[in-house]
Amino acid sequence: MTYPLNPELMYMMPTHFGPMSGPRQGPGGKKFAFEQDQRKCMAVSVSFLTNAAQLQELLPPGFELMGEPVVTVFETYMKEIDWLAGRGYNVLGVNFPVVYQGQKDRAVGPFLTVLWENLTDPILTGREQLGFSKIYCDLPEPVVYNGETHCTASWMGFRFLDIKLTHMKEVGPTDYPPSLSLPTDGTLSGTIHYAAYAVLSPASEKPDPPQSLMQGEGTVEFHRARWEDLPTQYMVINAFSDLEIKEYRGASIQHSVGGGDLSNQRILS
Amino acid sequence: MTYPLNPELMYMMPTHFGPMSGPRQGPGGKKFAFEQDQRKCMAVSVSFLTNAAQLQELLPPGFELMGEPVVTVFETYMKEIDWLAGRGYNVLGVNFPVVYQGQKDRAVGPFLTVLWENLTDPILTGREQLGFSKIYCDLPEPVVYNGETHCTASWMGFRFLDIKLTHMKEVGPTDYPPSLSLPTDGTLSGTIHYAAYAVLSPASEKPDPPQSLMQGEGTVEFHRARWEDLPTQYMVINAFSDLEIKEYRGASIQHSVGGGDLSNQRILS
Amino acid sequence: MTYPLNPELMYMMPTHFGPMSGPRQGPGGKKFAFEQDQRKCMAVSVSFLTNAAQLQELLPPGFELMGEPVVTVFETYMKEIDWLAGRGYNVLGVNFPVVYQGQKDRAVGPFLTVLWENLTDPILTGREQLGFSKIYCDLPEPVVYNGETHCTASWMGFRFLDIKLTHMKEVGPTDYPPSLSLPTDGTLSGTIHYAAYAVLSPASEKPDPPQSLMQGEGTVEFHRARWEDLPTQYMVINAFSDLEIKEYRGASIQHSVGGGDLSNQRILS
Amino acid sequence: MTYPLNPELMYMMPTHFGPMSGPRQGPGGKKFAFEQDQRKCMAVSVSFLTNAAQLQELLPPGFELMGEPVVTVFETYMKEIDWLAGRGYNVLGVNFPVVYQGQKDRAVGPFLTVLWENLTDPILTGREQLGFSKIYCDLPEPVVYNGETHCTASWMGFRFLDIKLTHMKEVGPTDYPPSLSLPTDGTLSGTIHYAAYAVLSPASEKPDPPQSLMQGEGTVEFHRARWEDLPTQYMVINAFSDLEIKEYRGASIQHSVGGGDLSNQRILS
Repeated sequence: MTYPLNPELMYMMPTHFGPMSGPRQGPGGKKFAFEQDQRKCMAVSVSFLTNAAQLQELLPPGFELMGEPVVTVFETYMKEIDWLAGRGYNVLGVNFPVVYQGQKDRAVGPFLTVLWENLTDPILTGREQLGFSKIYCDLPEPVVYNGETHCTASWMGFRFLDIKLTHMKEVGPTDYPPSLSLPTDGTLSGTIHYAAYAVLSPASEKPDPPQSLMQGEGTVEFHRARWEDLPTQYMVINAFSDLEIKEYRGASIQHSVGGGDLSNQRILS
Repeated sequence: MTYPLNPELMYMMPTHFGPMSGPRQGPGGKKFAFEQDQRKCMAVSVSFLTNAAQLQELLPPGFELMGEPVVTVFETYMKEIDWLAGRGYNVLGVNFPVVYQGQKDRAVGPFLTVLWENLTDPILTGREQLGFSKIYCDLPEPVVYNGETHCTASWMGFRFLDIKLTHMKEVGPTDYPPSLSLPTDGTLSGTIHYAAYAVLSPASEKPDPPQSLMQGEGTVEFHRARWEDLPTQYMVINAFSDLEIKEYRGASIQHSVGGGDLSNQRILS
Repeated sequence: MTYPLNPELMYMMPTHFGPMSGPRQGPGGKKFAFEQDQRKCMAVSVSFLTNAAQLQELLPPGFELMGEPVVTVFETYMKEIDWLAGRGYNVLGVNFPVVYQGQKDRAVGPFLTVLWENLTDPILTGREQLGFSKIYCDLPEPVVYNGETHCTASWMGFRFLDIKLTHMKEVGPTDYPPSLSLPTDGTLSGTIHYAAYAVLSPASEKPDPPQSLMQGEGTVEFHRARWEDLPTQYMVINAFSDLEIKEYRGASIQHSVGGGDLSNQRILS
Repeated sequence: MTYPLNPELMYMMPTHFGPMSGPRQGPGGKKFAFEQDQRKCMAVSVSFLTNAAQLQELLPPGFELMGEPVVTVFETYMKEIDWLAGRGYNVLGVNFPVVYQGQKDRAVGPFLTVLWENLTDPILTGREQLGFSKIYCDLPEPVVYNGETHCTASWMGFRFLDIKLTHMKEVGPTDYPPSLSLPTDGTLSGTIHYAAYAVLSPASEKPDPPQSLMQGEGTVEFHRARWEDLPTQYMVINAFSDLEIKEYRGASIQHSVGGGDLSNQRILS
């Protein structure tokens, strides 16, 4: 007598204890139980113009740069997430705009090269269910003093990133930047990932506006690491540390409510 | 221009920054750079006799119980690990003896149903490179007072396990339990995992003896959890919490030096 | 040649490195540099009616219960604190209303029997500069799910407190409870502490209203501890765990902005 | 009815819950219950010759440098401490040799200018019961790789110290450095502290030898901090960061068992 797997349900290692419970499946195997929640999010981002040649070295097969080589580094601090029964976690990502041309699909959008998270559970589900390049780091709460917002990231005590935002000014809802109009020629649009194959998190047609938006200036500093400092991530940090910063392209702080379960994630073919 | 993958090297998501660096590949892609290190290990374990019918419900296809249904819960505390450039981490596992019969291979040994670790990096490499059922929890250092060693495990503040060891007595090297003699009939032997297929960590023919060994008595208590307490692991904990404890079968504390890279891991067919 | 102490400035051990820098003195010894900041606070509280005789056993000399024996347990989560250069920390306190009669002073207000904080720096300044009974514990962020707010506290992995708030409803500013009118007969009013002598944090004559207020229901559970579980605090936790809960008296969640430096703290004589 | 204080027992804020329980008093007020335990200690230290004039600026009244201006930075990692019911914690200290001349007492020994600890409970008892200049920081386990032992210290993510030890060689018990012979002219000897007055932790006449001792080379680096980086400790770190390092004077790693309760601590008059 061994245990049966229910083909209708999602499993993850270890499979011996029943269907997994996570972002896209509730307790007992209830599918898409958390399709939309009311999580509280604060997202900060800083962008800079860099050298196209340096970004090209980070492109997997089928990818090309699109438009200006502008890198965006963002940290998002989330609370009250339903699939974690009301807990939160934080993420740090680095992206730049690309176009992907597969055998059938063509897609445009930000290429999310890596996403750090400070909780293992969504790292496992994101890697194995969605094809996100998620890895772990510590992401403490932002420090806000004297008009400056300071965000950091570290791994086992080695701080590898400092982000600073200054001169942030509230933007009125009527002045919110327009959401990108989706292509109408069949090209897909969304956040693009690569996990041995390309993967798309489709952009929403009508994204909800944030609750508040501030714009201003910011800087990003990745701190060069030896293998001894970051034995599993030094190559990631150093690639970003080496990027030329030709010009900063602004910063933002955004508060929003609600998040989805990314169950519309799809592989590009 | 996109980046090439070197077919000789190991990669993991994200692949854009060069070959991964981890337990089985050193900085810059040096393969098996850490084949054997001098890590310092302290391992505690407690065993108990349970109900065969309850264990059978945890068996994947091809698995059968072997001998008495004795469950062993162990925690190992490791330091000075080479592939982490001298850092350490801890693990918690639950196993019981099985025989696996595949189409070609037959194997006997402890079935490692789940392995918790308190560091994300080896969880990712263990799941993706070895087929280990690794998940995350906090594993604080043991507390030793008045002749009792107390080990615990928790996830985001919910303590789900208490292990207590008492009456531990030093065992002289001449009284060390003999290492299991490996089968000579072609049956394989080692720790058996299941990851959609069965996987074997082969037992060593001549395992190094520990530096010291203590034996005595112990108890194990898994604390029943609601989904709200452990939204990603409640089903694992509750399966163990439900196991009948018919009789405790002793406890051990072992100190040893050195660990390998498990590069002899193989899929059973 | 030894170092001189500047009698105008505040020092704390170690004194050898110049004036201390903390809540009531800025870098380089600038006094009251942080008199008022714009910290962001979220405070939760739950009250219950208990047994007067049990509270009397917690009263230092000169203290008497005032009115009904209603205990309030609160946790406050603070961010963007100026004297910490924009960092935050959290506190947990237990109080009940008393009247203090000294040789000269008479004062009424909540008696803050103990205040846990999750950061050592304000514990030291609060104990040594203000006479607050501060001790340490871990105070993770609240967990909010399905209409329930769940707050906890623990010390080295032993969770000693669960607070749960439910049915919380927004209160309009016009329905805010009136701030207590201060006594006009010379009696002092504020939060009362005891540190070998009684100490008062004077109540504000015109307290700022909160930014938002929710009221509803709540429960409090202190978990009985052995000395082995909480070797420095078991007696505190057990005193609260033993309190009879005759009736719950409501719960609140309040958001506010701004905090002072308590430099008007005074010893009662 | 208010609570009585038992004049035979030790109390600390909060006093309302009975006698405190800590290093020098057991549960229920049992005095000196933990006079001697079998804690496991690993101590690392690095010494360097500096500039006498810089050290003189750190001397309180009555103190003078003694002999060469050699600063020692040490970190001690402790486990299985009885008064913590078997838990452990770590400390970091900086000292140099002084002679103290009071009105009556004359004492010689290392002047412990500051002692960081990574646990609040012994910080409070040490400051309030012993007059030790204890403050908080994070003190992670040492990292040991490729013959180098690397110790660090940080506060809220800002790493302010790197200690590295190399070329460590085992010293045989017969080659252990002789313990200092205590003065016979009435001068006292031990670790000297200053807490508004001078305090002595008397040296043992017959200190137990360590279980093992290694000697070799080492370096110390305190990282200069802005007030924004370490708002409560920048002045301490910068004083050490400014010290000239004329010459390193060796490093050691020592393992030992057992610790006392310092109940022989005395104020120098």
